[in-house]
Amino acid sequence: MKLIVQKFGGSSVADSDKLYNVADIITKAYSQGNEVVVVVSAQGDTTDELIEKAKSINRNASKREMDVLLSAGEQISIALLAMAIQNLGFPVVSLLGWQAGFITNSAYGSARIEKVNTSRIRNELDKKNIVIVAGFQGINKCDNITTFGRGGSDTSAVAIAASLHADLCQIYTDVEGVYTANPREFPEAKKLKEISYNEMLELATLGAQVLNNRSVEMAKKYNVELEVLSSMSKSSGTIVRSVAKMEKMFLSGVVKDTNITRVSVTGVPDQPGWAFKLFSMLAAKDINVDIILQSIGRNGTKDITFTVIKDKIDETLKILNNYVLPLETSKVIFDDNVAKVSIVGAGMETHAGVASQMFEALYEEQINIQMISTSEIKISVLIDAKDADAAVRSIHRKFVR
Amino acid sequence: MKLIVQKFGGSSVADSDKLYNVADIITKAYSQGNEVVVVVSAQGDTTDELIEKAKSINRNASKREMDVLLSAGEQISIALLAMAIQNLGFPVVSLLGWQAGFITNSAYGSARIEKVNTSRIRNELDKKNIVIVAGFQGINKCDNITTFGRGGSDTSAVAIAASLHADLCQIYTDVEGVYTANPREFPEAKKLKEISYNEMLELATLGAQVLNNRSVEMAKKYNVELEVLSSMSKSSGTIVRSVAKMEKMFLSGVVKDTNITRVSVTGVPDQPGWAFKLFSMLAAKDINVDIILQSIGRNGTKDITFTVIKDKIDETLKILNNYVLPLETSKVIFDDNVAKVSIVGAGMETHAGVASQMFEALYEEQINIQMISTSEIKISVLIDAKDADAAVRSIHRKFVR
Repeated sequence: MKLIVQKFGGSSVADSDKLYNVADIITKAYSQGNEVVVVVSAQGDTTDELIEKAKSINRNASKREMDVLLSAGEQISIALLAMAIQNLGFPVVSLLGWQAGFITNSAYGSARIEKVNTSRIRNELDKKNIVIVAGFQGINKCDNITTFGRGGSDTSAVAIAASLHADLCQIYTDVEGVYTANPREFPEAKKLKEISYNEMLELATLGAQVLNNRSVEMAKKYNVELEVLSSMSKSSGTIVRSVAKMEKMFLSGVVKDTNITRVSVTGVPDQPGWAFKLFSMLAAKDINVDIILQSIGRNGTKDITFTVIKDKIDETLKILNNYVLPLETSKVIFDDNVAKVSIVGAGMETHAGVASQMFEALYEEQINIQMISTSEIKISVLIDAKDADAAVRSIHRKFVR
Repeated sequence: MKLIVQKFGGSSVADSDKLYNVADIITKAYSQGNEVVVVVSAQGDTTDELIEKAKSINRNASKREMDVLLSAGEQISIALLAMAIQNLGFPVVSLLGWQAGFITNSAYGSARIEKVNTSRIRNELDKKNIVIVAGFQGINKCDNITTFGRGGSDTSAVAIAASLHADLCQIYTDVEGVYTANPREFPEAKKLKEISYNEMLELATLGAQVLNNRSVEMAKKYNVELEVLSSMSKSSGTIVRSVAKMEKMFLSGVVKDTNITRVSVTGVPDQPGWAFKLFSMLAAKDINVDIILQSIGRNGTKDITFTVIKDKIDETLKILNNYVLPLETSKVIFDDNVAKVSIVGAGMETHAGVASQMFEALYEEQINIQMISTSEIKISVLIDAKDADAAVRSIHRKFVR
């Protein structure tokens, strides 16, 4: 008997047929003698529809009330999935985030899980129930509902798998695994059999929408073996574990991310402390910055450029404009017509010339590089948004054969 | 400073405009220096839509999972209403049934409130918040979500008013108060200024859809003063209290109820215990029976006839058919083409001839009476469904001038 955690995203449970397809997968695992805990997202576009509804009432609603609203989406999907499983004749119980023991901090809209009190889930498993848990939600210490932000259901699944010491955590999605590039846009992409946490983490952080990066971080921390696979196909997926053991590709993937904006603060005094002050103000508002570039000082001033995700641009500009207000020389400019293209692969640590090969691929397409950022296993470049697809294809051609 | 509980039904919060209309009513009461607790139902047809969704998955879903599903409706409406109030610049917090302290028994779908732990509500009021509570829902002692059945939000409001010793419990609906007949169908109906709990209870039990009868029972038990009024008009409504003090009409109302089925069990042995056994089996399944008529025994057998609400007819027939199975002489027949028409009024206790006047009104329209049931302040007759409207008009004409 194994303990398996399965997670199904919104598109996997979008309608009655899909719910029954998922119910088949779940009850098959249960019938093979496994204990099964299932984490589900809200159906299809439910979350977006609820957000639209909220916006029609109040564009600046508090995040607390947004979380009360949005968590209703998963509540609906867990009940419907449980009903489908009941109809197939299996014992099942659905649990909301608070019933499943998810305790979080109070960062409404992007709450962090502090612990999972698994006693209720354990109890239901001991009663031989299939347990369906609402993903994406928990409560803080004041008993208020919190949500984990986009992709939060992945995090819910990994947190349960870690807390229950599950044998495997399967993340069902609408692609068959992790690919060397987004297979929906680039048909030449190849599926990976295995990938390490670190590579997956880079891919997720860089905008590959297969797995949420917080969930990969957590899986790495607690050594939870993940399998990414499709609910609509019977193929095996991609295994994510600490060390990928099987055939190993030099490059894990090429990722493009157009959900970013480049922001520059020009004319900042060329003195210590300004950059620190600027980024700590953004961090205080939970605004993550990526690729940072600082110009060399000239005439006593310097320019600081970085990227933020598009969602956060209004808030970022508000903070920065206050910041530069007292500085006569300074101003804030931004460009959201940019894309970040990155390559990830553990192999590049030990191979020289990876960067130059990537830049060569871009040069062959006459693509201008605006910014560059590197880590041990990844290289990212910021380019014009219109060049993004050509860049991915050219780089993919060079590295994946 | 008064403590006011306000309850708004689904049609009062059906869309953005209506939510803002309700937000205006709430914030006006708050601005006048009152503490305000608001109970809300699910928006418009949300509950029906969720039921349809469930039926498309599993027509025999467990009641536990139905309650998980349906309680999401109020969750959406409390969040949206709180957002509207925030937009008007007032401090507000929304609470789900479990957060507001509603503890119930485990009768999923028609749970009874066992207590309301008001500490969280009290705490939020002390912080000067307007408190929005999801009606119709609570949790049982195992932390599972329960719902109270149709009209359950009225019960939520009265339970909070009773537990907090509120000064007034306002039930906002889409009619302006309690009328001598349903004003949507019978324009000659007159609005009552006051009505006693007992009369209101008869009206509610008899199918007047203004107030849920459980909520009136609870208001009577805890002496909570109710006001029934419209969210769409500024007129004062109808006050419900222990003794109606002001101008008093002889008749409180004429009510028609077509949501019933007449069931007969024929050929039951004319021996003690059979009726008891029959009705206790129905009671065990929470099936309420009304107007009961038992024929005089003949040839060693008798017939038992009664009414149940239409929803319960399948379950009732199943139980009864099992019951009569061993009896060769017995069979079960039913007719759902019937209506119950009732008159209610405290005045009739002290006036002779009320029944005969009612029967005269029916006779004038050539309407045949199938069954009769009376209490101190009400008379009900069962008639053919097609005669129901003519019966109400004729009776109303005779008593309300």
